[in-house]
Amino acid sequence: MTEHTTEARIVSTSFERHSLPLEESFTISRGTTDTATVVTVELEDEKGRVGVGGAGPSSYYGETPDSVEAALPDLLGAVEAVGSPHAQQEIEDALAGYAPEEGAARAAVSIAVHDLAAKQSDEPLYRRWGLDPTRAVQTTYTIGIDSPAGMRDRAQRAQERGYTKLKVKLGTDGDRERLEAVREGAPDADIRVDANCAWGAEEAVSNTRWLAEHGVEFLEQPVPADDIAGLRQVSVEGELPVAADESCVTAQDVPAVADAVDIVVVKLMKCGGLRPATQQILTAKAHGLEVMLGCMTESNASIAGACQLTPLVEYADLDGSLLLDDDVYSGVPMPEGHIDLEAVESGIGVQRVE
Amino acid sequence: MTEHTTEARIVSTSFERHSLPLEESFTISRGTTDTATVVTVELEDEKGRVGVGGAGPSSYYGETPDSVEAALPDLLGAVEAVGSPHAQQEIEDALAGYAPEEGAARAAVSIAVHDLAAKQSDEPLYRRWGLDPTRAVQTTYTIGIDSPAGMRDRAQRAQERGYTKLKVKLGTDGDRERLEAVREGAPDADIRVDANCAWGAEEAVSNTRWLAEHGVEFLEQPVPADDIAGLRQVSVEGELPVAADESCVTAQDVPAVADAVDIVVVKLMKCGGLRPATQQILTAKAHGLEVMLGCMTESNASIAGACQLTPLVEYADLDGSLLLDDDVYSGVPMPEGHIDLEAVESGIGVQRVE
Repeated sequence: MTEHTTEARIVSTSFERHSLPLEESFTISRGTTDTATVVTVELEDEKGRVGVGGAGPSSYYGETPDSVEAALPDLLGAVEAVGSPHAQQEIEDALAGYAPEEGAARAAVSIAVHDLAAKQSDEPLYRRWGLDPTRAVQTTYTIGIDSPAGMRDRAQRAQERGYTKLKVKLGTDGDRERLEAVREGAPDADIRVDANCAWGAEEAVSNTRWLAEHGVEFLEQPVPADDIAGLRQVSVEGELPVAADESCVTAQDVPAVADAVDIVVVKLMKCGGLRPATQQILTAKAHGLEVMLGCMTESNASIAGACQLTPLVEYADLDGSLLLDDDVYSGVPMPEGHIDLEAVESGIGVQRVE
Repeated sequence: MTEHTTEARIVSTSFERHSLPLEESFTISRGTTDTATVVTVELEDEKGRVGVGGAGPSSYYGETPDSVEAALPDLLGAVEAVGSPHAQQEIEDALAGYAPEEGAARAAVSIAVHDLAAKQSDEPLYRRWGLDPTRAVQTTYTIGIDSPAGMRDRAQRAQERGYTKLKVKLGTDGDRERLEAVREGAPDADIRVDANCAWGAEEAVSNTRWLAEHGVEFLEQPVPADDIAGLRQVSVEGELPVAADESCVTAQDVPAVADAVDIVVVKLMKCGGLRPATQQILTAKAHGLEVMLGCMTESNASIAGACQLTPLVEYADLDGSLLLDDDVYSGVPMPEGHIDLEAVESGIGVQRVE
């Protein structure tokens, strides 16, 4: 590759595990957590610039902090062997060869490589892709499962903090009462509901009636991941647009869900990096689908990477770092949920918090 | 958008029509031409840097040099209104609004905008996308329809010039005799055949037998564009992989042909620009298809833009400018068909020929 004046080789790589406490315990249909355990990655070039990324592994997809830490030495070795953070195609293809099942580990490295390349060019990452920062959409703020009173209170506090778009986790007993409580707490909010695979198709069709009555915008992953026919049934018979999350992990999964849903949820931790996420977004759009960029509970080290792609999508659910009580990096500002990409000066826009 | 040190506004735009003589008359199943009439575009920024692009309109897609020239004032006005060549998303969306049917005109502007943005950053365009220049594939050299003796001679001369991959146009009477003549002229070449919609499905299935006997790699667009069932029939019953060209104009057409063919042909002049082409490539790959980047008879002003995407694809048919006797721009070197992306120093790598 031609050597460029701004180019500097990667001379050292490192990773670090962090247990980041959440502001409040967070429950979805599959379980409860009080802590986000993430693994952050740093790549340093010979001029001392540092590229940052992060993994937010999800046990649902078979990943843990341990599996991420087990995968990273090989992945970072591959990056060091290539050397240039501008060789993103070469690096991401190598990562997929080393750790095809470790989406979060690959995503961490992908984000760090792209961050460093953009920092070497002294420009925001989104700008290298020609994306319009003024199109960055507003993120939802997630209301986890709690008692109805607790969810009312969480929704009310979210609204007081200025979050006008809420994502509500359902999928246990008493879903209707919980959703009604959220609506009481945040009467004016735009509400999207995520059942995280917990319902059957018939039940989901029925539930769309009261969800629609309460002004819910769309329903995410009502049925189990492999029940594509169920997703289709909910789309056809129900009263709300349907989004596929667990049913659509990578770009290659888009064709199978394309006639079953209206929206695809793209997450860096599922598909394994910024290039795979771009492919999944563009493929979904070629199929006439809308796209939501989503996340796990993650540090700004990875959320800020996902934010760079928000000009391409209709919806963002990138509140992973907003739910943290403490983070090791600051990221893209999100005042009242508005992702302020224009504030990014270089790379993905993260700074280590000392 | 944040102002960057390398950023400079576009202060003037211009376009120019050129009638470029071909080295030899060029015939496909739909007709013969001796001249490529192209329209080139230049965008100049306030620091005197110039972004270059080109349109190679095809009457098959309803475009002519006149229609390109009629569309360009609005398109270039939109570019001047936006001002920054880095606002590629904003510009390309605006172009699609002004001239949805004018793919070649939009492509010319898209290429010039991307060229200028990369020139402002003093790097090759492919590098801004993280693509690996060593993966740029070898282009085919096209043998147009001629008498069998003429095609034998053309193939022999192509082989003498070092072109080891040939694309052979068929689709008139005497196809088999012509293909055999090409094979005689270039016994060792990799041969791909393009019928440009000229056959029926049954005929195409039958033709694949002798095409396969002569070692043809794949068959492009055997049947009319709207005959997707015919493409599928040729794929299933025939003996060669099948590529969709006229049947797959944009990314949005990929799903409909995905189960009917093995390869999709992406052309900037069909889909209307570098971002749409990237989407079409990535969508095809998500469907498990291979991709060939193709072209019309075009100047280096546009071929060099398509070359930037070759690291993403399996096949290239980017000999549009190789077929010219004279061009107004030099482009990406293609010694013996090898697209030498590493030789590009800045932008898409074109220089005005004085």
